Amino acid sequence: MLRTNQLRFAGRLFSSAATRGMPAGLDSSKLQIQTNSKPSSPKANNELVFGQSFTDHMLTVEWTEKDGWAAPKIQPYGNLSLDPSSAVFHYGFELFEGLKAYRTLDNKITMFRPDMNMARLNKSAARICLPTVDGEEVIKLMGKLIEQDKHLVPEGQGYALYLRPTMIGTTAALGVSSPDKALLFVIASPVGPYYKTGFKAVKLEATDYATRAWPGGCGDKKLGANYAPCVLPQKQAAERGYQQNLWLFGPEKYITEVGTMNVFFVFKDAKTGKKELVTAPLDGTILEGVTRDSILSLARERLNPEEWTVSERYYSIHEVEQKAANGELVEAFGAGTAAVVSPIKEIGWNGKDINVPLQPGKQAGALTEDVASWIADIQYGRVKRGNWSREVTGPL
Amino acid sequence: MLRTNQLRFAGRLFSSAATRGMPAGLDSSKLQIQTNSKPSSPKANNELVFGQSFTDHMLTVEWTEKDGWAAPKIQPYGNLSLDPSSAVFHYGFELFEGLKAYRTLDNKITMFRPDMNMARLNKSAARICLPTVDGEEVIKLMGKLIEQDKHLVPEGQGYALYLRPTMIGTTAALGVSSPDKALLFVIASPVGPYYKTGFKAVKLEATDYATRAWPGGCGDKKLGANYAPCVLPQKQAAERGYQQNLWLFGPEKYITEVGTMNVFFVFKDAKTGKKELVTAPLDGTILEGVTRDSILSLARERLNPEEWTVSERYYSIHEVEQKAANGELVEAFGAGTAAVVSPIKEIGWNGKDINVPLQPGKQAGALTEDVASWIADIQYGRVKRGNWSREVTGPL
Repeated sequence: MLRTNQLRFAGRLFSSAATRGMPAGLDSSKLQIQTNSKPSSPKANNELVFGQSFTDHMLTVEWTEKDGWAAPKIQPYGNLSLDPSSAVFHYGFELFEGLKAYRTLDNKITMFRPDMNMARLNKSAARICLPTVDGEEVIKLMGKLIEQDKHLVPEGQGYALYLRPTMIGTTAALGVSSPDKALLFVIASPVGPYYKTGFKAVKLEATDYATRAWPGGCGDKKLGANYAPCVLPQKQAAERGYQQNLWLFGPEKYITEVGTMNVFFVFKDAKTGKKELVTAPLDGTILEGVTRDSILSLARERLNPEEWTVSERYYSIHEVEQKAANGELVEAFGAGTAAVVSPIKEIGWNGKDINVPLQPGKQAGALTEDVASWIADIQYGRVKRGNWSREVTGPL
Repeated sequence: MLRTNQLRFAGRLFSSAATRGMPAGLDSSKLQIQTNSKPSSPKANNELVFGQSFTDHMLTVEWTEKDGWAAPKIQPYGNLSLDPSSAVFHYGFELFEGLKAYRTLDNKITMFRPDMNMARLNKSAARICLPTVDGEEVIKLMGKLIEQDKHLVPEGQGYALYLRPTMIGTTAALGVSSPDKALLFVIASPVGPYYKTGFKAVKLEATDYATRAWPGGCGDKKLGANYAPCVLPQKQAAERGYQQNLWLFGPEKYITEVGTMNVFFVFKDAKTGKKELVTAPLDGTILEGVTRDSILSLARERLNPEEWTVSERYYSIHEVEQKAANGELVEAFGAGTAAVVSPIKEIGWNGKDINVPLQPGKQAGALTEDVASWIADIQYGRVKRGNWSREVTGPL
């Protein structure tokens, strides 16, 4: 009889799990706030450099396999103190996210599609055996963090508060295994527009001598492991005059992504005049970008299907080269949270430069401009769109 | 004239570079030692668990792009204090090494082939844009660290002091670029034999659904990036009863390595009776193991070439499966610093287990036993071999 009752009330038993010795879920209602006694003044907008300065507070939540998530803390921004044998220093147990909070026209603060970042954070965590979270709880906590430092959220088109949720394995032992301790933290950096004076089109080097990601790897996850190995090829490309690598894959030389951005091309069929917006498919080697997803959604809604096809498909540098030669390459742009969209003007390949058209007298193609406006309009609250903007504070 | 002199004395100018504002090289003579006021007592040998406890001191050396290497410090083992935006937490700027110091029969302490680890450390560093070091200087410093804690170097066959040189990028900013600050640190853990009661042969799962490394990647470097992504497949293999993954590569299903060990197989030609010791070639996807190199060197010297071939070549799980079916699979073992050699008894593949022969009543093949003895004899000073043992202290 006791057993039957236990089964019947399993739901209730489970919900009070923490008190019964089961690991606790991440619970925003347990938040403890320790305010910074030395609040800083906002920097002038023109002094904001991406990821160089941070707000007065940070969010930290500790996790252990045994007890689950501890009480979240908002505390003054400051150093982390970690045992030198911690898993994060040795075996790459680290993942991150990047999203932005915007001050809207009506002076609210909103986060752009934070649920997408939380879903990806959980995929990254599961891939390297770090704990997953209840994303809505972390979104609430990031809201509290933003509220705490709301005087540091900059105002104006192109300005935002960049949020960097990060999770690290903190087990202090050298065995290579699943961490039994972890730390989730969120820091925030006030940032300006990637291009201070409108667009500035970039040159990419198509890279096939180094490989960013591969099938059966983890190139689709936002892990530290995917970044450090790409910096040497980036430096080498820079020495040859290119800002970033355009990562190719396989003997087919498929175009994948830029490493800090997804990438889109626009082709126009010389015979039919029909245009195609194309980006690589999510096959496990491509980061599942929130901006990429936003652009695909908006393009599928807003581009006239009689004039446009929107494709997620494999395409190679050879196809781009051929289409450029035929006059069928219309424009190209990168897409990511930092720059939102980043027009491309040249691609170095095989010792030559493929010229990517721009509009006369401009640093971007026509669709690149449109896409940038579509997204900015939503981010700054000029256009409402479903649940893409998550309100943190009402009018200030 | 001044210019000519400057050119003529360029060597001298360069050697006093630090005083002229050029970045300083890593210089062991600048060592500062702060002793731990609470020295610990050695644990009993049977309490030593790999990488779980550490000695009283650690070595740290800070680096900046502008000033180069600062004065090395030996200080009490303790937490590192790092800005949460540090490159190591976000982008995988981390590398490590693993080597052992042994208490020899005549009660000296020696390091086993530390120059090999330093050479690899520099390859790893160059690959992710961290600074390189003068390896001999770091070897001297590790010697000083060992001397400081020499009472904690355990005695007895199978016991050693495991040294973990680690380098991390410490630039406190979120841009993805080459770190302009770094920290080299070395911690030390007294360790016991991997298998407490002689050999214990392991079961490996041949894994093709996840991929450890790729051409154009960095699987041959000892980077944190290579480890975290392998832990989920390792857990999944463990759930099916296998201790580790045997990583396969490509449509050919080539055998590469174990992720924490290189791997060797012994085949015997059924017709000629000639035996082959085989391991995968260093093609950029295989860790360049010091134990692997030591085994190849010793095998080429000591195995009778009329009876043996020693090969670094591609070979696949299909070849192993076929040879096992033909009675041509003799034995197999993993090779790495932690376990030195680790015999293999079964390989799970395609839903079946390939049985790897062991000697009757034993947990290892004959060559596995020999190789383990060859190396232990050198490590514990029973056999002298050129510069493989680097003396840290004379008889204690």
